[in-house]
Amino acid sequence: MKVTYYVASTLDAFIADADGGVAFLDPYGDGDEDYGYGAFIASVDVLIMGRGTYRFVEEHGTWPYDLPTIVMTANAPDTSMAESIDFTSDSPEAVVTALSAAGHEHAWLVGGGELARSFLLAGYLHYVIVSIAPTVIGGGISLFGGAAYPLGLEFKSARGYDSGMVQIEYGVRAPAVGERPGRPGVDPSG
Amino acid sequence: MKVTYYVASTLDAFIADADGGVAFLDPYGDGDEDYGYGAFIASVDVLIMGRGTYRFVEEHGTWPYDLPTIVMTANAPDTSMAESIDFTSDSPEAVVTALSAAGHEHAWLVGGGELARSFLLAGYLHYVIVSIAPTVIGGGISLFGGAAYPLGLEFKSARGYDSGMVQIEYGVRAPAVGERPGRPGVDPSG
Repeated sequence: MKVTYYVASTLDAFIADADGGVAFLDPYGDGDEDYGYGAFIASVDVLIMGRGTYRFVEEHGTWPYDLPTIVMTANAPDTSMAESIDFTSDSPEAVVTALSAAGHEHAWLVGGGELARSFLLAGYLHYVIVSIAPTVIGGGISLFGGAAYPLGLEFKSARGYDSGMVQIEYGVRAPAVGERPGRPGVDPSG
Repeated sequence: MKVTYYVASTLDAFIADADGGVAFLDPYGDGDEDYGYGAFIASVDVLIMGRGTYRFVEEHGTWPYDLPTIVMTANAPDTSMAESIDFTSDSPEAVVTALSAAGHEHAWLVGGGELARSFLLAGYLHYVIVSIAPTVIGGGISLFGGAAYPLGLEFKSARGYDSGMVQIEYGVRAPAVGERPGRPGVDPSG
């Protein structure tokens, strides 16, 4: 199973403000342009998100997703927004292994940055698709949390939209999922 | 006079590591590709940099620039790396006003992020050209320091290089230099 971190960010690499809000995206949600979201969501069969992202959705609306979802949290809440949601305190490795065993092929890591970081560092993130809004907000939730060491990504494509959004797609040089968990960017055969 | 912040950044928006180093750029300095630097440097006639950036150059080599340079610092050092360097504790407004009066037309704001922030917030930054390396380093010197409020940029172009660098050019929606210093992004006529 592949895991893709598909996310929108400010130019200064914040995916949300300090309260978890994404008002910075408001100017880019109008019109017919979906920045490839429709094609992307059609390609995934399961969602993975962190507790903070789930809590933000819970506090701000109804559950917007039709796909089975894993919420990674040390403390599962008493109630759930939808039957399609499972809570787990398992590691990225255990989650990916279980989802692969269940037949899933492509997970969307919805967020947040700390969860993306944990998957990156564990070697279970395969693609990063970041849409950079032409905005600087100065603080908030970081795109990758505080990563522990330099990590190389593999550039695939970049595209500028009329709205000012720039979408960049990267691969992650990492061991194959379920085979050699370890530091991404390090060739396990080397 | 126009001011351009031409800078390289990691994907997580750090322009240097915590020590000021830019080792993350090492993989991208080889070969014939200059990422437009030659054309850019030929278009500027004065440099502006902060004390931290100057100190890093001072500690790590000889003075690499042929252009007159303003180092903005509250405490000018006793010695200077080159006769072409002036130290000043003036504000962005005063510096831009003085450089304009001296006939300069295009300044390169070399860095760092806090200086870029101060020019942005004062309304004296006109263009941002950021080359994003396909790298995550998790911490260091931020692209724009800690900005005080959301700021909109005007997307101009994006280009991906074979090396994985993605260069994005923005304009800054700000009052005309020397006319209406104030919050960028706010139409002074509105």
